[in-house]
Amino acid sequence: MTKMTVDGNFAAAYVSYAFSEIAVIYPITPSSPMAELADEWQSQGKKNIFGFVPKVVQMQSESGVAGALHGCLTCGALTTTYSCSQGLLLMLPDMYKIAGELLPCVFHVSARALATHALSIFGDHQDVMACRQTGFAMLVSSSVQECMDMAVVAHVAALKTSLPFLHIFDGFRTSHEMNKIDVWEEADLRAFVEQEKLEKDILSFRARALTPDAPIQRGTAQNPDIYFQNREAANPQYFHAAKEIQRVMDEMSKITKRAYHVFDYYGKADARHIVVMMGSGAITMQKTIENLPNNGGDFGLIIVRLYRPFSAEDFCACIPKTCHTLCVLDRTKESGAIGEPLYQDVCSALAGMGIQHIRVIGGRYGLGLKEFTPTMCYAVLKNLSAKNPKNHFTVGIIDDVCQTSLDITEKYYLPKDNYVACKFYGLGSDGTVGANKNSIKIIGDKTPYFAQGYFVYDSKKAGGITVSHLRFGKEPIHAPYLIDRADFVACHNPSYLFRYDMLTDLKENGVFLLNCPHTDINTLNAYLPPSFKKNLAEKQAQFYVINATKIASEIGLKVRTSTIMQAAFFLLNPAILPYEIATQHLKVEIDKKFSKKGENVLRMNHAAVDSAKNAVIRIDYPNEWANTELIPNKKIENAYVRDFINPILALQGDELPVSAFSKDGAVPTGTTKHENNGAPRLLPQWIMENCIQCNQCSFVCPHATIRPFALPDSVPTPTHFQTIPAMGLPNVKFRIQIVPYQCKGCGVCAQTCPTKEKALVMRPADELLNQEEE
Amino acid sequence: MTKMTVDGNFAAAYVSYAFSEIAVIYPITPSSPMAELADEWQSQGKKNIFGFVPKVVQMQSESGVAGALHGCLTCGALTTTYSCSQGLLLMLPDMYKIAGELLPCVFHVSARALATHALSIFGDHQDVMACRQTGFAMLVSSSVQECMDMAVVAHVAALKTSLPFLHIFDGFRTSHEMNKIDVWEEADLRAFVEQEKLEKDILSFRARALTPDAPIQRGTAQNPDIYFQNREAANPQYFHAAKEIQRVMDEMSKITKRAYHVFDYYGKADARHIVVMMGSGAITMQKTIENLPNNGGDFGLIIVRLYRPFSAEDFCACIPKTCHTLCVLDRTKESGAIGEPLYQDVCSALAGMGIQHIRVIGGRYGLGLKEFTPTMCYAVLKNLSAKNPKNHFTVGIIDDVCQTSLDITEKYYLPKDNYVACKFYGLGSDGTVGANKNSIKIIGDKTPYFAQGYFVYDSKKAGGITVSHLRFGKEPIHAPYLIDRADFVACHNPSYLFRYDMLTDLKENGVFLLNCPHTDINTLNAYLPPSFKKNLAEKQAQFYVINATKIASEIGLKVRTSTIMQAAFFLLNPAILPYEIATQHLKVEIDKKFSKKGENVLRMNHAAVDSAKNAVIRIDYPNEWANTELIPNKKIENAYVRDFINPILALQGDELPVSAFSKDGAVPTGTTKHENNGAPRLLPQWIMENCIQCNQCSFVCPHATIRPFALPDSVPTPTHFQTIPAMGLPNVKFRIQIVPYQCKGCGVCAQTCPTKEKALVMRPADELLNQEEE
Repeated sequence: MTKMTVDGNFAAAYVSYAFSEIAVIYPITPSSPMAELADEWQSQGKKNIFGFVPKVVQMQSESGVAGALHGCLTCGALTTTYSCSQGLLLMLPDMYKIAGELLPCVFHVSARALATHALSIFGDHQDVMACRQTGFAMLVSSSVQECMDMAVVAHVAALKTSLPFLHIFDGFRTSHEMNKIDVWEEADLRAFVEQEKLEKDILSFRARALTPDAPIQRGTAQNPDIYFQNREAANPQYFHAAKEIQRVMDEMSKITKRAYHVFDYYGKADARHIVVMMGSGAITMQKTIENLPNNGGDFGLIIVRLYRPFSAEDFCACIPKTCHTLCVLDRTKESGAIGEPLYQDVCSALAGMGIQHIRVIGGRYGLGLKEFTPTMCYAVLKNLSAKNPKNHFTVGIIDDVCQTSLDITEKYYLPKDNYVACKFYGLGSDGTVGANKNSIKIIGDKTPYFAQGYFVYDSKKAGGITVSHLRFGKEPIHAPYLIDRADFVACHNPSYLFRYDMLTDLKENGVFLLNCPHTDINTLNAYLPPSFKKNLAEKQAQFYVINATKIASEIGLKVRTSTIMQAAFFLLNPAILPYEIATQHLKVEIDKKFSKKGENVLRMNHAAVDSAKNAVIRIDYPNEWANTELIPNKKIENAYVRDFINPILALQGDELPVSAFSKDGAVPTGTTKHENNGAPRLLPQWIMENCIQCNQCSFVCPHATIRPFALPDSVPTPTHFQTIPAMGLPNVKFRIQIVPYQCKGCGVCAQTCPTKEKALVMRPADELLNQEEE
Repeated sequence: MTKMTVDGNFAAAYVSYAFSEIAVIYPITPSSPMAELADEWQSQGKKNIFGFVPKVVQMQSESGVAGALHGCLTCGALTTTYSCSQGLLLMLPDMYKIAGELLPCVFHVSARALATHALSIFGDHQDVMACRQTGFAMLVSSSVQECMDMAVVAHVAALKTSLPFLHIFDGFRTSHEMNKIDVWEEADLRAFVEQEKLEKDILSFRARALTPDAPIQRGTAQNPDIYFQNREAANPQYFHAAKEIQRVMDEMSKITKRAYHVFDYYGKADARHIVVMMGSGAITMQKTIENLPNNGGDFGLIIVRLYRPFSAEDFCACIPKTCHTLCVLDRTKESGAIGEPLYQDVCSALAGMGIQHIRVIGGRYGLGLKEFTPTMCYAVLKNLSAKNPKNHFTVGIIDDVCQTSLDITEKYYLPKDNYVACKFYGLGSDGTVGANKNSIKIIGDKTPYFAQGYFVYDSKKAGGITVSHLRFGKEPIHAPYLIDRADFVACHNPSYLFRYDMLTDLKENGVFLLNCPHTDINTLNAYLPPSFKKNLAEKQAQFYVINATKIASEIGLKVRTSTIMQAAFFLLNPAILPYEIATQHLKVEIDKKFSKKGENVLRMNHAAVDSAKNAVIRIDYPNEWANTELIPNKKIENAYVRDFINPILALQGDELPVSAFSKDGAVPTGTTKHENNGAPRLLPQWIMENCIQCNQCSFVCPHATIRPFALPDSVPTPTHFQTIPAMGLPNVKFRIQIVPYQCKGCGVCAQTCPTKEKALVMRPADELLNQEEE
C-alpha cells in the first residue's frame, strides 16, 4: 500500500483496470474520467495484474456497451464498464441477461440523478435504484478510500459468487472528491488474488464460456412449462452471496486493517434511535453522531454496504436490542411509491424476521446532489428522537407545499473538526480548479498531511463560477460536504465581490485573499461593496489583496493568474507547508507540466510563483468598516427575476422553497438576458455601411449573439433598428441584430468579417450598452 | 353497451383508439395485436370519439416510440402506445421524463416476462415491475372485461390527474383470452367523457403544450441548488391521485354497474387469512375462495387495481379487523431482494400505518405464464392458514433445490364450475385455432351463452402443437387458467395419439373426437396405442372418429380439415347450439371470409360443413380395453433426452423440478435431432449423378436441411457418405448433406433444382430413414 491523493473515479478505475481484460466504455458524466483513465492507461501500455494490456473499446451508446459486455462475458473475458444515469438505464435489458446467465463482472457506477422534470448531471441514487430488480449484486462505497477497497471486493466477489456487481458511489461527491488514501499497489492486488486462489474461479468462469471446442447453448426461448423452474435455479447463488462477500471483506481487512461488513453499525451498543443509510451521506451522519455528547448517546447508524443481495439476517443482527426507532434515509425518490426503496427494504426485513417492536420512518435527502450537512443530520436525529417523528420527510429543502421537510432553525457544526478549510472562488477555465488540484496533490503526496479537495462547477462550464473546497489536516478527512466554515477564502475574480456573498462561510478571524486591481486602503474603501466591508470587519477577518491580473499581464502570462494565486495561498498558509518548500514543489510541477512548451513558458511560470511573496498586501482596514451603511437593493419589478433567477445567480438557490417551482419543470423562455453573467468587456458593433451581407459573422459566432434578419419592407421594425436594403431582394430590408447578453466577447465575428473595412468591430461594452438603452 | 366476444388486446386497443389522437407503435409479442388493430382501424378511416381519424405511426424500436411519444405529449396531443417486456424497458429513460413533466397518457401493456437465463414471450409482471419507480400510475386489469373498463378509467384519469398511466394486463393469459364482455359503444364513451367534462381537462393539458404562440421551456438542466425542490413540487399530483381515480371508477360504475376500487376486498368481513394479488391470477384465487365452504370461511382476497400511486390508507382500510395473516403473491422475481415488490409494498404499508399485529408472508407464482390453477390457490390458502406458514415460497413448481415450493399432493377442482369445457389438439397453422376462434364468436355473439377461448401455442409456431381451450356457459366465465377437466376433447392430428396424453384432462364419460384414417373398431383396435385404449375405457369416455383428412382431400380442400372438425364439434355438442343453426352460422362466416375467392372455394367449404353430419362415427369399444396391457417405454440411454427433452416434448415440462435445470440457462447443442417433431412424409434425396453443384437447393431451403460440403480429398469422410468430385476444384470432393430432422417436407429444394433430371427429389420419409440407418 502507498498513500496517494486521488479521486473516487481514479480509485475505482485503477482497481477495475487491474482486474480486467476488456473495458467496454461509453463515457457519461460523472463516470467519464473512469473510462478516460482506462483508455489512457491502455494507450500507455499499462498492464493489468495478469500481465496483459486490457482492451478498451468505446461503443456508440450505452446500449452498445451492454451488448458488447454481455458478448465478452459470454466468451469468458473479464469485462468491466463505467456508467450512470440514463446511460445505465439503457443497459437494463442486457443486465437482466447478464445476471440471468450468472456472468461475473463489475459495472462501476458514479450514481447520478435521472432526468425527470429537468436534467441533472449530479449525484443521487435514482439510477442505481432503477437497477435493483435486475439480479445484480450492489456494493456501495461511501468514500474515496472505499471506492478503492470496495472495487477490490467487487471484482473478487463477482468471480467468487458468479454474480455481476454494480459498484456504486455518489456521482461528483465521491467520484470527483480528491482525498489522500491508501492505494493498493499492483503487488498487493496480486498477493490478494493469489491468497484468494482467484485463478481457480477465473478458470471455472472461462469453462462456462461459449467456444466451438466445447459447444453449449445460451439464450434459448422457454415456454411456460419450464421458464419458472429455471428462473429459480440460480437461487443458491443469491442465498450464499452475502456470506461469501463478507468473507472476502474479512480476508481483505487482514491486509488493509480496514474492517468492512455487509452492514456496519456505528454507535453505542444500547442506542435507541438508529439511522440507516448508504453512500457518502452516511459518513456525514457518522461524524455527526460521533460528535454528539456521550459518544452519540442514544443514536446509532447502520451503513449499508451490500444493498443487493439484501441480507435481512445480517441487517437485523446489526440492530441493537435496545433499538426503538429506525430512520431510513434514501437518496432517491419514487413518485407514487409508499416509500423509497431502502425504507421498503428495511420494513420488509423487519417484517420477515418477525421484529415488530421497532418503528420505522423514512426520509429523502440529497437529490441531484443537494448538500447533506451535519446541520441536516442533526435535524434528522432530532426528528428521529421526537415523540411523533415525521415519516416520509424530506431534509435539506423547504417544502412549503406538502410540508414534508424537516425544520432547520440553526446551523450545526461538528465541534471536533480538526482540519484547515479553504475555499476558492474562480471563473470557469481560469485555472483555479487546476491549481487547487495541484496544491492538494503537493500537500497530500509531499507532506504527512491528509488532504481533501472538492470542486463545485456551474453547469455553464467555461465562464461560470467555480468554488474549490480544500481541507487539510493531520487525520484522514471524512467530510463529504461543502465547507461552510472556512479558515481561508480566496476570491480570484474581483467582479464576484459585487455578486456573491463570500464571507458568511468564513470563520471569525479567518483569512480573505482577494485578487484585486486596487491594493491601497483608500481606493479599496471606495471600491469594495458596503456589505463586503461590513461583513469583513464584523468577522474581524484578516484581509489580503494581490493584483494578480496586473502581475500576470506584466510577466507575459496574459490573463492566467492561477499560479500567482496558488503561490499566494501557500504564502498565507505556512502551517500547512513552509512557503519556500511549497514554491519548490510548485516549480517542479511547472517543469513537469510545461517542459515541452519551451524555456520561455517555464520562465514566466516560475516568475509567477516567485511574484506572490512581495505582491500579497495585508490590508489593515479600520474597525468602523463594521458600521458601513448598506445600500438597499434595487427594486426589481419582474417577480420571476427577483424571486427565482436572482437568488439562483447569487448562489442562493438552495433557499428557494418548493412553491417557487412549477410542478412539471416548465420555465419561461428568454430569461438569459436577466442573467447578466458578467458582460464581456468588448462587444461587437455592426457597421452597416461596410456590410456585404455574407452572414459569415453569424455562421462563426459560437454564442448565437449575431443574428441576421431579412424582412419585407412592409414589416414594421422598431424605429431605432437601423436596416439596409437586402442585396438581390427588392423591397426587403436587412439587419444584423446583436444580442449582448449572449456574447462572451470572443471577437471571432470581427476576425471573420471578410470585408476590408470591417462590418463588425469589437468595442467597449459600456459604450455600446449605454447606446442600446438610448 | 353491447355484448361482444373479444380478447384483452382488442378491448384495450378499442378504448385506447377511441381516446387518442396519435398512437406511436412498435409491436412486440403479446402486445402486437393492439398496435395492429390501431393500424388497421386507421387505414379503414375509423374515427376516435372526438371525430378524427387518429394518426398511427410505427417507429424503428421502442426507444423511438418513447421519444416520439414524449414529443407528441409535449405538443399537447393525446397519445398512446402498446408494449411490454424488453420493449418497455427501452422506454424507461423517457418514462421518467414523461412522468416528471406530468404528461398524461396511457401505455397499454400486456405484461410479459423478461429475458434472463432464457427468453420468454409469455406473461408475468417482471417488465411492469421494472417501471414501478418511474412515476407512472399503474392500473391493473385481471380480465378481458376489465381490460376495457380499466382502459376507460386510465384514459380519463390520466387527464384528470395529469399523470401518465401504465394499463397492465397479463400477456397472453388476458391479452389473448377471448371472452364475451360488455363493450362500451362509442356513444357510451362520448357520454361518459361529457359527463366527466373531460373537454376541460384536455384544454388544460393543451395549454401546457409547447407552442411558439406562448413559448415556455421544458427539459432544462438544474444544478444541486434547485433540482431536489422541483422534484418534490409534483407531490400533490400523486397524493391526490388515488382519490381521483377512485372517483372516476365510481362514476363509471354508475354506467356499467360494475364496481371497481383501487383495492377490492372479496371475502367475509371477519376473515383471518387474506391473500393480496393483482392480475389474472387474482380471479382464480377469488373463484377458489368463493368455492370454499361457508363463502370462503376464514379466507379473503384483496385485488390490487391501482398499484401506483400505492395508497397505503386505502389498502389498510380494505383489510378486515380480524385479519391475522396476509399472503402476498407476486408474479415476478427480483433476485437478491428480500421479497418481491408487492410483498415489500404491503410490508411497508402496514409499517407506515402502524399495523403491527398482522403477519405478512410472500410467494411467487406464474413466472413466464406458468399455469396458476385452483389447485395452486388451494395450496396457497393451506399454507396461509398453517401454524408456521412458509415465507418467500414458490407455487406451481417443484423446487427440490432450495425447497421454496409449496407441496401439492392432489388436484383441487372448483365444485361450482358451471360451464362446458372443450379442448382441441391441433397442428400449428392447420386451421384449428382459427376455427375455434370462429366457433367462440358464433356462440358468444349469436347465442345467449357466454364463451371463453384460450389458445396455447408452441413457440415453434407452424408445425408445433396448438391446444385450444374453450368454455361455454350461461354465466360470465371467470376462469383464467387452462382446462384440466374437459367435457369434450378433440384431436385433429392422429399422430398426437402416439405422443401426447390427451385423456387425463377428460372428465369421466366425456366425449373424445379423433380425426383418424381408420374408422372401424377392428382396425382401430390395432391402430390405437394401448395406453390410449386403456385410459379411454377407464374413463368410460364417449369415443367418436371422423376421417376428416380423407373427406378434405375428396372435397378438394387438400389437407384443410379444420372446417370439417369444427362442424363435427357442433354436431357432438348440440346443447350449446343446435347443429342445424350452427352450420348455418358456419356457412355465413364462410361466405364472409371467402367471398372474394370465388364460387368454387365457397362450395368446397360448404361441403366441408355438411360432410360432418354423416362422417362422425361413434365407436362402441369393448369394456375390456380398460384391461389393455401397456407396453413399457423404450429405454433411452441419453439422460438429457430421457429426463429433460422427452418430458417437454410430451407436454410434461411442468413436472420438471428445479434441479433439472442449469443455473445459468445453458443447455447442450445439437438436440433438435431428438425432437422427432413429426418427421414429414416426404424427404429430399440427393441424386448425385444429376447434380451440377449450383447449391441453389441449399440457398432456398427454409429449414437449413440441405447443406452442401466441399472438402479436400485428404479429409476423411464416413464411408457411407457418397461424394462426387467438386467442379473446378482439383482434389476436392463435394456432397449435399441432408439433415432429416430439420426437414419440414416443403419440397422447395426439389422444385428449385434447375437440372432437367432433378438432382433432388422428394421421396417417402420411411424409405429414406431406413436407408440412413443402414
